[in-house]
Amino acid sequence: MKVNYIIKNAFVMTMEGKGVGMIENGAIAIKDNKIQAVGTSDDISRDYTADEVIDGKNKLVMPGLIDAHIHTGIGILRGVSQDINNWMQEGLWPFMKHVTVEDNVKGSMMNIVEGIKAGTTTFCDYDGNMNQIVENYVKVGARARVAELVNEIPEDIGDIPVGELYPFYSEIGNRKLNNNIRLMEEWHEAENGRITCMLGPHGPDMMSLELMLEMKSLAEKYDTKLHMHVAQGDREIDQMVKRYGKRSIAFLDEIGYLNERLLAVHLTEATKEETMQVARSGAKMINCSGSIGIIDGIVPPILEFLEAGGTAALGSDQAPGNNCNNMFNEMKFVSILNKVKSRNPSVFPAHLALRLATIESAKAIGLEHEVGSLKAGKKADLLIVDLQEPSMSPIITAPIRNIVPNLVYSAKGSEVEAVMVDGKFIMRDKEILTISEKEVVEVAQLAAYGISQKAQGDIFPNSPLLQRMESGEL
Amino acid sequence: MKVNYIIKNAFVMTMEGKGVGMIENGAIAIKDNKIQAVGTSDDISRDYTADEVIDGKNKLVMPGLIDAHIHTGIGILRGVSQDINNWMQEGLWPFMKHVTVEDNVKGSMMNIVEGIKAGTTTFCDYDGNMNQIVENYVKVGARARVAELVNEIPEDIGDIPVGELYPFYSEIGNRKLNNNIRLMEEWHEAENGRITCMLGPHGPDMMSLELMLEMKSLAEKYDTKLHMHVAQGDREIDQMVKRYGKRSIAFLDEIGYLNERLLAVHLTEATKEETMQVARSGAKMINCSGSIGIIDGIVPPILEFLEAGGTAALGSDQAPGNNCNNMFNEMKFVSILNKVKSRNPSVFPAHLALRLATIESAKAIGLEHEVGSLKAGKKADLLIVDLQEPSMSPIITAPIRNIVPNLVYSAKGSEVEAVMVDGKFIMRDKEILTISEKEVVEVAQLAAYGISQKAQGDIFPNSPLLQRMESGEL
Repeated sequence: MKVNYIIKNAFVMTMEGKGVGMIENGAIAIKDNKIQAVGTSDDISRDYTADEVIDGKNKLVMPGLIDAHIHTGIGILRGVSQDINNWMQEGLWPFMKHVTVEDNVKGSMMNIVEGIKAGTTTFCDYDGNMNQIVENYVKVGARARVAELVNEIPEDIGDIPVGELYPFYSEIGNRKLNNNIRLMEEWHEAENGRITCMLGPHGPDMMSLELMLEMKSLAEKYDTKLHMHVAQGDREIDQMVKRYGKRSIAFLDEIGYLNERLLAVHLTEATKEETMQVARSGAKMINCSGSIGIIDGIVPPILEFLEAGGTAALGSDQAPGNNCNNMFNEMKFVSILNKVKSRNPSVFPAHLALRLATIESAKAIGLEHEVGSLKAGKKADLLIVDLQEPSMSPIITAPIRNIVPNLVYSAKGSEVEAVMVDGKFIMRDKEILTISEKEVVEVAQLAAYGISQKAQGDIFPNSPLLQRMESGEL
Repeated sequence: MKVNYIIKNAFVMTMEGKGVGMIENGAIAIKDNKIQAVGTSDDISRDYTADEVIDGKNKLVMPGLIDAHIHTGIGILRGVSQDINNWMQEGLWPFMKHVTVEDNVKGSMMNIVEGIKAGTTTFCDYDGNMNQIVENYVKVGARARVAELVNEIPEDIGDIPVGELYPFYSEIGNRKLNNNIRLMEEWHEAENGRITCMLGPHGPDMMSLELMLEMKSLAEKYDTKLHMHVAQGDREIDQMVKRYGKRSIAFLDEIGYLNERLLAVHLTEATKEETMQVARSGAKMINCSGSIGIIDGIVPPILEFLEAGGTAALGSDQAPGNNCNNMFNEMKFVSILNKVKSRNPSVFPAHLALRLATIESAKAIGLEHEVGSLKAGKKADLLIVDLQEPSMSPIITAPIRNIVPNLVYSAKGSEVEAVMVDGKFIMRDKEILTISEKEVVEVAQLAAYGISQKAQGDIFPNSPLLQRMESGEL
């Protein structure tokens, strides 16, 4: 049978089965936008011919990585708010208040390019202005599962003093909800199914009970998931207790949110019992090690979540918090942070991190029938990784293989040399093929310059960041 | 005045002063192997002409990174021993026992290339067979400050059951000490001072009191430092208590080791009081976040060490433990691990991590008169970093600059596009100029294959790694 591509003589890490499903001297055949077959090089060479046969010697073929939680819209503010206690109010906000829709779109594209270069093929993007941002995914050719960030809080939320209850405005909620509905109606299953949509309530503290219940009904109507921050910080818990007299997870349980439709992002402040309750409910957890480490100095309770039988995924969150949007970074951090949290080096082995960035992530976001592993019939979303980069060398295959630990603990992301989504290469030889990376960066740079000019007077005079700037630390 | 190189229109991060010493629109002039001048582009352009003027627009010029603790010799075993409790015995040893001197040298070169590509210009290499390994630095053109690993334990130390006291053999100690002395006599200040030497006692548990005292005298005779593991694991403390009835640091204090000649590596098991005692003694600490996180699941007490006024540096340790030898990885990990250890995001700000990989590291290892910052008269060891990589974009300069946090929390190492050591470019446009990277990797690959063939029968049948291999997790 004739297919479009065969990649052979490679290590093929399928992520099928309970481990990583490694096939040595393996091959994969791709026809149109799907995986036609996976097997040994001999089997595939016998059964298929191809328009292009790629020699995968000393290379690894693996499923594309899934970033289950990313806000690409604020990529434009990478690195403006680190090493401080009030990340949002003191660091992000003075810049954030000047970001326009156009800035969001420009920063998003730079962020998406960063992710693709580090092997991300599916982006669970969750941000305002998603009806505009989504067009970036059309252009660049990546897979996206997008949600509009819906809340009822005013635009100047960053100016509300910590501890004061947020006001809710139903006209704001209606506008944003309508954006989410429009996204769903216009974009779900677009681009041959490459774009799919979810609903995106911002967090239980950011909107009224009425709007939360309306979004729950809509999730049932559209048979989709609710991508939402849950127990994401002490400020959320404080708002919940002040408003409802209960913590986030008890509240969500009461209003019927704790079920398989919920993607509960962060759980930073969830107790062990709350975490287990979420896991047992069938809701999924998205763990963002890098951003929560940097913003809060906390390791989220993913071990407890997994122990209770929950399905979890990894996310890179946003560039002004985590600074990078690189799933190799997330795999490494979730493993090592949980080892030190447990003071046990055998905790969170490398293959588990890989699963949470591929097949388990696909299950969590509800795309396991399409992506997350290399299997005949699934969409052809895959990476070719150069194992001859010094950081991945040497390759040892007996008596044990060293590829999996090196992929998690050593790879930086720059070892990815090719990225295929939906059967099309969108990067080869480390070059993005669908758009001009140089232009994307230059456009974002200009936009960031404009924002920084406007932000000049807005940073608090006593900001620790301004003090660092003045003392030469930045 | 005519110089060899001018790099201008760049962000020049000098690491002079208390912060990072950033000069916007800065320039640097390099003559022979030294920095002739650092200043604004206008000043340097007015005062100097050059054989080559490099446009540094949208680039960062910074001091080369110093890896203060690396064992390149076992680079050949990258990734063979992760996610287990007895790293040395169960993971490393079945392979390690088959590693020859030639394998050490080949693995070392691959490791050095990895480091250079991620911006390391000075390697504090600490390993057996250093008289052979040192030639790699001559060939590749990096700066090295090397020590022979001296101990009196038998070659088959990995076979001694955990808990049993090591035997010491003075003939082994004499041979290794003689190697260290030969290294010192033949290589110290070689290659125009690019190679310097230290003494390398393996650890207080690995050798007799007599040999420790002899090495202390030698350090005074040669006026050099003692690079040594201290309190590196519970096994060391157990050996010390069984042999001497006291813990490592009390023992070292008693025998006169706690002073400015000592580079105390790891301090994994040091209590707060012991850590402060080491800091106050003038001894330096080398902190290896990645390897100690992976091998032990521990965050070493560097915050306490710094609070007590100590001078500390960062090291990448070894590839079978940390998997990568990349100082960007170490900077990121030391910051984030200490934030979560303290549950405080303002702890260990980015500029501190940068200092510990540059100027503070130079102070710790005793090379601050030559490297660690960009200053007229110092050796020209520097990096050019591409700030237009998406991971470093956009550049924001007002009201605060985002370059420092992005360098620590986002850069992977692959943003480094050029590396200069001793006034010579050893990498440009991401290509190593002094040797063939491809050949280095292929040579190491062949050597690793040979080792893995010999190791087949040596891995313990009940090894958790073998179980992982069998269950498809590797």
